[in-house]
Formats: sequence, C-alpha cells, structure tokens
Amino acid sequence: MSDHAMNGQRDHDTRLRAWRTGIDTYQEPIVYMRSDCVVCRSEGFTTQTRVLLTAGTRSAVATLNVVEGNWLAPGVAGLSEATWRALDPAADAWIDVSYAPTLDSMSHVRAKVYGHRLDAGAFNAVIGDVAAGRYSDLYLAAFVTACAGDRLDLSETVALTRAMVAVGHRLDWGRETVVDKHCVGGLPGNRTTLLVVPIVTACGLTMPKTSSRAITSPAGTADTMEVLAPVDLDIAAMRRTVERTGGCIVWGGSVRLSPADDVLIRVERPLDLDSEGQLVASVLSKKAAAGSTHVLIDLPVGPTAKVRSTEAAQALGRRLMEVGRAIGLQVTLRITDGLQPVGRGVGPALEARDVLAVLRGQADAPDDLRQRALQLAGDILELGNAAPNGSGLRLAAEVLADGRAWAKFQAICEAQGGLREVPVAPYRQVITAAVAGRVAAIDNRVLARAAKLAGAPKAPAAGVDVHARIGDPVQAGQPLFTLHAQTAGELDYAGHFVDTRPPIFQISEAA
Amino acid sequence: MSDHAMNGQRDHDTRLRAWRTGIDTYQEPIVYMRSDCVVCRSEGFTTQTRVLLTAGTRSAVATLNVVEGNWLAPGVAGLSEATWRALDPAADAWIDVSYAPTLDSMSHVRAKVYGHRLDAGAFNAVIGDVAAGRYSDLYLAAFVTACAGDRLDLSETVALTRAMVAVGHRLDWGRETVVDKHCVGGLPGNRTTLLVVPIVTACGLTMPKTSSRAITSPAGTADTMEVLAPVDLDIAAMRRTVERTGGCIVWGGSVRLSPADDVLIRVERPLDLDSEGQLVASVLSKKAAAGSTHVLIDLPVGPTAKVRSTEAAQALGRRLMEVGRAIGLQVTLRITDGLQPVGRGVGPALEARDVLAVLRGQADAPDDLRQRALQLAGDILELGNAAPNGSGLRLAAEVLADGRAWAKFQAICEAQGGLREVPVAPYRQVITAAVAGRVAAIDNRVLARAAKLAGAPKAPAAGVDVHARIGDPVQAGQPLFTLHAQTAGELDYAGHFVDTRPPIFQISEAA
Repeated sequence: MSDHAMNGQRDHDTRLRAWRTGIDTYQEPIVYMRSDCVVCRSEGFTTQTRVLLTAGTRSAVATLNVVEGNWLAPGVAGLSEATWRALDPAADAWIDVSYAPTLDSMSHVRAKVYGHRLDAGAFNAVIGDVAAGRYSDLYLAAFVTACAGDRLDLSETVALTRAMVAVGHRLDWGRETVVDKHCVGGLPGNRTTLLVVPIVTACGLTMPKTSSRAITSPAGTADTMEVLAPVDLDIAAMRRTVERTGGCIVWGGSVRLSPADDVLIRVERPLDLDSEGQLVASVLSKKAAAGSTHVLIDLPVGPTAKVRSTEAAQALGRRLMEVGRAIGLQVTLRITDGLQPVGRGVGPALEARDVLAVLRGQADAPDDLRQRALQLAGDILELGNAAPNGSGLRLAAEVLADGRAWAKFQAICEAQGGLREVPVAPYRQVITAAVAGRVAAIDNRVLARAAKLAGAPKAPAAGVDVHARIGDPVQAGQPLFTLHAQTAGELDYAGHFVDTRPPIFQISEAA
Repeated sequence: MSDHAMNGQRDHDTRLRAWRTGIDTYQEPIVYMRSDCVVCRSEGFTTQTRVLLTAGTRSAVATLNVVEGNWLAPGVAGLSEATWRALDPAADAWIDVSYAPTLDSMSHVRAKVYGHRLDAGAFNAVIGDVAAGRYSDLYLAAFVTACAGDRLDLSETVALTRAMVAVGHRLDWGRETVVDKHCVGGLPGNRTTLLVVPIVTACGLTMPKTSSRAITSPAGTADTMEVLAPVDLDIAAMRRTVERTGGCIVWGGSVRLSPADDVLIRVERPLDLDSEGQLVASVLSKKAAAGSTHVLIDLPVGPTAKVRSTEAAQALGRRLMEVGRAIGLQVTLRITDGLQPVGRGVGPALEARDVLAVLRGQADAPDDLRQRALQLAGDILELGNAAPNGSGLRLAAEVLADGRAWAKFQAICEAQGGLREVPVAPYRQVITAAVAGRVAAIDNRVLARAAKLAGAPKAPAAGVDVHARIGDPVQAGQPLFTLHAQTAGELDYAGHFVDTRPPIFQISEAA
C-alpha cells in the first residue's frame, strides 16, 4: 500500500481490495467491510454510512454493512452484486472508499413529504441523483410515497416527466411519424401490445415499442415478451431490429430510456403503491425518450381494474394528454372494458401462449384478446395515417387473418435474438365452482394477487389460467381457474391464499 | 435431515443450520441463503422474499438475500446480527424457513398514502406488526412518510399513541404522582433533563425518566446520559434504580416501553423527517408507558430550532395536551427561547461535560443551561406539589447550590451501573471569525449538521464546542467554535462541510 500512501493525498489509507460476495440485495448497492478494517477505523464509518466507492474510472454510492467475522478477509471490501456490476472491477482491484457527497436533493423530497410543491429544478436534482444510484432504498421509498396517490399537480407531473426524459437516452428515428401505445395496467392478461406491434408494422408504420416489467401486476409486457424472445437489447440492437422490421418489443430499462423509472419501479413493486403523477411520468417519459410522436393510451375500466370508473379514466386521460402536449407528444385515448381478464392466461408464459394462439389463428385462440388488439391496432393505423378514418379495424383484421402479422412477429423475435419455446409450470392446482350458477363477477385484484403468490413474474411459467368468463354458466365442481407454479412451496402458498379468501369468482345461483 | 422428513409435515425440507454472519444491517433482519440450497429451490424463494424463520420457540420475519458464492456453506442460513438477536439460536441449531404470512396491515399504510384517515383498528394492526418486526425497512419508510408533516389528525394521533402504548410494557409505580418532562428537540446541547431529574428527585418527587436516542439531532438525552452511566437497563434494573433514588435516566428502547417507537426511529433517523403526529405519539406513548401522571413539555422556539414560531409551538402544545387528556396524562407546557444552543457543547460527551460543570457548581459552568434547568425543575416541583406555587424555582436553586442535586445525580449513576469518565475527542479543528463585529445569529440546524458529520452521536466524543453567543463582540480570527471528531476522516468531512457553506455564525460588523 506504500504506492498509495506516497501519493500524499491523504494521511491515512482509504483502499481495500474488491471481492465479489455474490449477495443479491435486489439491486441496492451494498458494501461489506470489517469493523476492524483500516478504512472503517480511520474514516469512522459505521453501518448505514453512505460511501463512495471508486475503482479506476468508475464509481458508485453504496450503503455500508459492517461485519464482525472472519469470512470476510482483512483488507477486503465485499461487494453485493449490484455494487459489483456498477464498478465492474478487475479481480482484486483496489477500491477507494470515502464518504458519499451529501445528498442535497433529499431536502426536496422532505419538502414534498411536508406538502410543498416542487419546481423543475427540484425534480431535476432528485431524478438526477436517483438515476445516478445515489438514493438508498429508504430514500427511494420516501420519494415514491411522498408522490403517491394524487400528490403531484399538473406542472409537477410535467417537470417530473421532463426530468425523467432528460437523464436517459432519447432516440431519434428520423421519421415524421413514430407510433406507440400504452395500456394502463390492472387488467390481468391484457397483452395486446404483442399483437398490435406486428399488425401495424406489417402495414408500414414504425413502432419501436419499449415496455416495462411488472410493477404491481403478475406480468408486464416486457416480462411476457421475454418468454418469446430476448428483450434486454441495447440501443444499437434495438435500432437494428427496428430498421430491419419496422418495430420491436424491448424492455425499456436495458436501453436506458428513462433509467430513473426503472430505479423507482424497484421500490414501487414491493410497496405496491400506485401514483397518478408517477404513472403519467413513467409512461410518457418512456414514450418521449423512445422518439415517439403519436401515442395511443388504452385505459381499461372496471370495478377491480387499476382504473375503477369512467370518470377516473377520463381524469387520468386528461392528465396524460395535458402532460403529453407539454412535452410535444400527440396523445389519444381509448377507454376499454376492464370487467374481467383479457385472454385466459395471467402470468408471462400463460399470456405468451394466448398471444401465439391469436397470431397463428388457432381456433381456440381467445377471441376477446384478438378483438381488443384489432381495435387498438385499427386506432393506431388511423392515427398514423396508414388507413383512412373508419377503415383501420378492417385493415388490421386482414393483416392478422392472412398471416402477415404472424410472419412479422416471427421476424421481430428473430431480429431481437430468436423465437423461444414457451415454458410450462410443473405444479398445478385446479380451483372449481362450489355451486352451480352463472359467473356474475371476477375479482381481478385478488386473481392477480394469487398469480403473484404463485411466483409470477419472477417464475415466468407461474400464474393463473382462467377457464370461465363473466356470464358463463357453470356446474358445481367445474374448473374455474388453475394455479400454475414452478415450485411446490409457491403452489401451496398461492393455494392457501385462495382457500382462505372469499371466492374470486362470484357465482349467482341459477334461477 | 431424515428425522425431519419423517415428521411427514411437508414433502420437502425447509430447514437450514443457523450461522452467524456478523453482518450489521442496521437492525433490519436479513437472512442469507445460497441460491442452490434445498430450501430456496423447493420453496421458490428469491431475493427480497419475506420469510418466517423459526428456531425452537422463537421466530422472526426477515428479508432474504440470495447468495451465489462459497463463503456461505451449503445447508446453512446466514443470519444478520438483528436476525441472530431475534432468534437467539444455539450454534448450528436448525432454522425452519417458510413464507412470511401475508402482511395485511400494509393495506392500511397504502390507504394512508392515498390520503384516507385510519381508525384505531388500523393503527393497532400496523403498530402490532411494526413492533413484532414484520415490516421491512421499505414498508417502515412508506408508513413514516405517509404520516409525516401534519398528515395525522387528532383522533388518528390518539389512536396511534394508544396503539404504541399497547404493544409494550406499561409501568405502574403505585404512587399518585409520577412526574416527567420532555423537550421537543431541535436545540443543540439542550440537556436539561440530566439536571432536572436529580433536582426534583432530591426534593422527594418520583421521576422515572426514559429518554430516546437522537432522531435527527447530534445527541439525544439517552446518548448524553450514556456517556456518564449505562442507560440500557431492563425494567427490573430501572425499578431498582427508582426505588433506591426516586429517579433514573434510561434509554426507553431497552425497557421496551413503546417498542414500536424505536423501530420507527431507526427509519426516521436516516430519512431526517419530522412528523407532528408521530412526534406526539412518540413522546406521549413513552410517558404513558413509563407510568407518568404529570408531564411538563419544554418547547424551545426559534427560527432555526425544530419549532420555529410561537404559533407553531402553541399548535403543537395544544395537540400534546389534547392527546394527553385522551390517554389520561396531565400535560403542561413551557415555551422557551430556542434562538441559540444551550450550554457550550453539542454532542454526547461535550454536553455531558457541561452538565457536570453545572452540577458541581463550577465557576465556568454554562449559566444558560443552569437557568433553564432551574426554571423547568421549578415548574415540575410546583406541578408535582413539592413546592407551593411561585416558590419552585427558589427550591430548585437551593438544591442545586447546596450539592444535594449533585449527590443525587451520582447516586442515580451508581444505581444505573456506575459513573463514567467523559471521553475527549483526539481530532479538532477551530473555526474562527472572518471579520470583527458582533454575533448576530447562529444557524442551529447547520451547527447540528456539522456535529453529526463530525460523528455525533455514534462517536460520543464527537461534536461541536461553541465559544461565542448571540450578542458577543468578536475580533477577526477569534475562535467561534471547535469541531471535535474521533477520526481524521470525520474531521475532514465536517470541516469540508463547514468550509463550503455560508458562515454558521452571522457577524454584523461593528458600527
């Protein structure tokens, strides 16, 4: 260590050797250091200290966990997986450890917690620090909570959206019209994007779709697409895919479009919090960063969907249009029926199976999913001037029926890295009707919860397969849905949850 | 493992051997398990899964961190220090690992985030789970943030306070009058409790004082007292101390009075959030649980104190009296001057030094600290009927002057485990006046921040020693305050912070 001491920059050593612990801390960067190490002792670091780690030209802020124990060798800094990825050090590389710079932007978060409005400068400061990984999970949780519900007004939402666009890449396709769509979730299995993209690109439009992974649902579009093809493309690979096929369906996080959004989602997911302002900023920042010009928003409405009334959908839609206008996006809306799941599967692999059935024109393909996708694709064809007003739906149906959409989907999957086989879960439990009658209602929220407890989306094959729809007559003992799980433990867990709740399917006894 | 499998309770093994990792995760219970271990594989556990750990008759909920790496032996569950303390297993004991029960009370937290009022049942459910350690740090951060600022109304604050009392021990002293005091912080160095307790107990009152550690300040009363004597007494030791001396000054957390408060403080501290409702619930739940009947609240007011205006103090005081009445406590208020630090030291050891100087009647003892303590002690003597109205202050002054208070303080320290020497920090930096003039203002918040960056309260000897008061004339180059630190790194850090901010002492140049 004398080479370092001779630099004369400091009068005590601040370096340790990098060592990969292999600990997965769910993306929060942690560094493990012995309490008796020279750095802790000379710098006064204790557990929970936020430290700046520097390895060569890379640096990262991490939370310190002090260790008393010999499994961590003297002179070593143990890195969690997230810290290791951020620093990407050579084996045994020197890591310089110092206090993290004071995080001034937390004063804005506190102001928001106390009910004050934040201006553009405040959002830029917060989101810049969030995207740079300077917020601990506690800080992220406070920010997300402070902005949740309807606590952001219009100008705050615009400022948050702009800040989120500004910290990531912004794509430019060199075309006048670049279309996009987004479905505001809450409706299990609503996987229309995987149908809409091949249909409208088969008609000549450009649709470079970036999707998010699930926040509070059992599967996000990116999770479902990942069952069928790689989605973690970098920008160069995404650009090649779009140039070759006119479209793509990739995970927004890996192309670093609105990277702050992906950091926030990591905390929003376990907290299971919804937030109008963050929802709008999340959706539109991704669209703007992806270089879109025309965006269709699909808002499913139903008593157990994410948006529960037409009034709420209109309020949210208005906010999306207003913020879109402020950042230069033409946003249009379609409010759709959110009464029950779309398709049959809930969970990445089960939803992917439904999508393939529609694309291949299988006789048993879920008709509700097909109809909904055609309607949205028709809207986009008209919005993007690929079909005269009133004829978009017909064009979409033609392209699906004659196999052009299926060919296009295969081309997109190949361009993204190759079409994959859909996995099947080894553990299953069938839930049956207790009484005969007619299906009167389905609780989408509890159904989604069951799919999550069964392991979705982390286990792609896990989820729920729905066998009956609202209005269907059922016999006592007839299967209503099947839980799918990758492990016996998760199946038990989801099954126990279902068994101890009021029935997810309401059956009104036949007259 | 065949003995377990033969129980036939489950068709797969769910047990691992306990192993102490020595990792200090700042009290959040974490369990480290190999991704290839039999339990992860059979149960489908992944990082961030909340698991229930059972060892013999004890159990704890922990967050899972999955590990890829050979430092963790196969068949072993690595426990963080918090998890180890909660389970207290024999070496190599079997730990059963299962999914944590679903945490239904988080639905109340979400409701609060979305702006709904919570009823008593909701607070009981949340606080019960918090005290039982079932909330991850993310959940705690969401709850604290959702209740911060003034988001709890009167009945919610009463419900929260009652819930916090209900989950801990509640002491009964068998006496009609048990006095207590609390200072609503924000004023560095305001360590009157260590003077008030010996004065009023020397006059025959019962004052079993439990104090908290610092939340956002450089030292809490418990931190300062700990410099002079042990404060982590259990209830039996606290009772012995009070029976022998009439008083005590102990840390509330170790006697498990209002244990939920200590869990919440652990998250409030790094977030640095204030909350009126949580402040009231925190203060009064501790008093009620400690068996107090009469409570004096000291509210220092000043532009940089925690309470910034007399109006704000009155509003907070009203809320404290209202909630006190609802839970059966007689609460009275004293609004005091919060313009500048009280005493000279800011930080546990420096404050303890000031307290000893007053108790010993040293000529150089800080007079402001003495006067303030006498005033509060006089109030309490009158409130507790130990002095006729109007003569409390005189009695307090007598007891301090003739050495009875100092003798009593020594007796209390001895009863708590023995009087200690005050440590002195090895690293110091003097900050001097840039110009000649008069001290016009002192920024208490920034001063407190500097003391914290220097290491207080974790390093007891760290902090700030103040050499000039508002109104004092100073020469250019005259010392204004001295930073004290245990390590060179912390001194650098605090010094850098002070150097790059506007001056903490405002000096108006002499006319």
